[in-house]
Amino acid sequence: MSVAWTYDPVKSDMAAVEEKIAGVARQAPAEIAEQLRHALEGGGKRVRPALTLLAGKFKRYNAGLMTSMAAGVEVLHTATLVHDDTIDNAAVRRGKMSIKQRWGNSNAVLIGDYLFASSAGLVAETRNIRVIKLFARTLMSICSGELQESINAFGWDRERYFQTISDKTACLFAASTESGAVLAGLPEESIQALGEYGQNIGMSFQIVDDILDFVGQKEALGKPVTSDLAQGVFTLPVILLLERPASARVKEVLSGDRQEGIRLLTEMVRTSSVIDECYEIAQQFSSRASAAIERLPRNAAHECLTSLAAYVTERRS
Amino acid sequence: MSVAWTYDPVKSDMAAVEEKIAGVARQAPAEIAEQLRHALEGGGKRVRPALTLLAGKFKRYNAGLMTSMAAGVEVLHTATLVHDDTIDNAAVRRGKMSIKQRWGNSNAVLIGDYLFASSAGLVAETRNIRVIKLFARTLMSICSGELQESINAFGWDRERYFQTISDKTACLFAASTESGAVLAGLPEESIQALGEYGQNIGMSFQIVDDILDFVGQKEALGKPVTSDLAQGVFTLPVILLLERPASARVKEVLSGDRQEGIRLLTEMVRTSSVIDECYEIAQQFSSRASAAIERLPRNAAHECLTSLAAYVTERRS
Repeated sequence: MSVAWTYDPVKSDMAAVEEKIAGVARQAPAEIAEQLRHALEGGGKRVRPALTLLAGKFKRYNAGLMTSMAAGVEVLHTATLVHDDTIDNAAVRRGKMSIKQRWGNSNAVLIGDYLFASSAGLVAETRNIRVIKLFARTLMSICSGELQESINAFGWDRERYFQTISDKTACLFAASTESGAVLAGLPEESIQALGEYGQNIGMSFQIVDDILDFVGQKEALGKPVTSDLAQGVFTLPVILLLERPASARVKEVLSGDRQEGIRLLTEMVRTSSVIDECYEIAQQFSSRASAAIERLPRNAAHECLTSLAAYVTERRS
Repeated sequence: MSVAWTYDPVKSDMAAVEEKIAGVARQAPAEIAEQLRHALEGGGKRVRPALTLLAGKFKRYNAGLMTSMAAGVEVLHTATLVHDDTIDNAAVRRGKMSIKQRWGNSNAVLIGDYLFASSAGLVAETRNIRVIKLFARTLMSICSGELQESINAFGWDRERYFQTISDKTACLFAASTESGAVLAGLPEESIQALGEYGQNIGMSFQIVDDILDFVGQKEALGKPVTSDLAQGVFTLPVILLLERPASARVKEVLSGDRQEGIRLLTEMVRTSSVIDECYEIAQQFSSRASAAIERLPRNAAHECLTSLAAYVTERRS
């Protein structure tokens, strides 16, 4: 993703964020440092911490506070990925072996916990109670979204889908921008606007992720294709297929052999127009994101956020 | 444990803590409330939150702050238990089915995460940055201790053992008392003293736990006996056996059949004097705990803490 979208206005600070993230592994007991480095290093797009820094650029930008918060956001995200891989039994993450695959499930649970704790520590460095509370609420939301996803496996509708991706993904995007805005001391209206931007960009981002799970290239994604379907999770493309009048065939496929069902369903998604429809829906969320920040000053950060809103729906990995 | 030790000076507030803990499940999305209730309700001794409240009784006791912190401490403890059970593959916890056993591993990972987030939220309610940071550090310590325990399975010495139980258990006891002291606005010296009390009582508590894993009754413990040994974890009784001049027989047992090894080793522990030695060591930590708070005012909370120090080494479940 970073190939096309660059966050120039905060590029130098992002190096400081990387340094801060690397510090988590460096300061850990020697026995677990390697696993932490493996989880935290490279491969990630770092969109969320960039959003925090960009949101901070609209008023009083305190590099120290922003860097801690941005690192906290990314470390929290990484923690959820490490646990996700134990839950989805995923062998590959960000193009390399998952922690679970390389060091086993038990270790992955504990490494994820350690990362949660580290992210809480980074966020506490801001000494700002509002973002600390936001952080806790966001983590609750993510877990609740993940739990709903697993509980609702093989039973979804559009509304349920939007609620789940709002909880498990968009919420952290919203927290990323909102926390930057809070720490910059922006007025309440602007905090809400940036939060809304993050929320909508997060929705768009997840929908495109779910599209790419059907039409993406394994190499570009850094994970196998149709992994959601294999987990029994219906994402937007399948839900749109099921909404169609001719969905009887889809239901028939689903009631048959599972492996064959996945293959057939993938083919139906790819050869129908649902992918275009999904991109349109993602586009709507992106437009809402841009609209949310319309009243904010037109600085370099604004331009960057606007270009992200456009880019998210164009990305192919 | 509560049979013999009662925390009368904070008894009425403990009801408010229970109410706060129950609120975590009550405020959660309906789909996960039952699992949260299952994890949080009953069975637990609630020693840690009682310690927080008791430590708060030495100066400015703000019931609202204390209750949030105490609930946060217990919810954090519960979160670690839920994850422990996925790691140790334990079917029983606090005398009932573990979350993992009843709802599966993936759910247990997410429910544990949700509880971590909830505990972070409760601690943030105190609006006190120092205890919020302490909370994050404590969780890091617990994970690091658990990771060390799993990495060092079947390879221990006394020093390593003390370090591990300090990280995984005593640290949270220390945080329980320290946070209460901080929130009560005690002078630094008293905060340190109460932290030291917690640290030492936690060491004593864990050593007795490890003794009971050999000599306790399954019904009283609410879990199977010798579960540590089955996980390949050597606790103090085995380490003391191995330190003896006649430890060749122990090593021989360990190199043979695993099931038979566990049986033989358990018998050797039970028929030797190592259990008495372990109780003596626990006693030393308890004495250090009492000594640490010697200079604090002799109020009802002081009496209660002192009686706990004595009781910990007498408990049989």
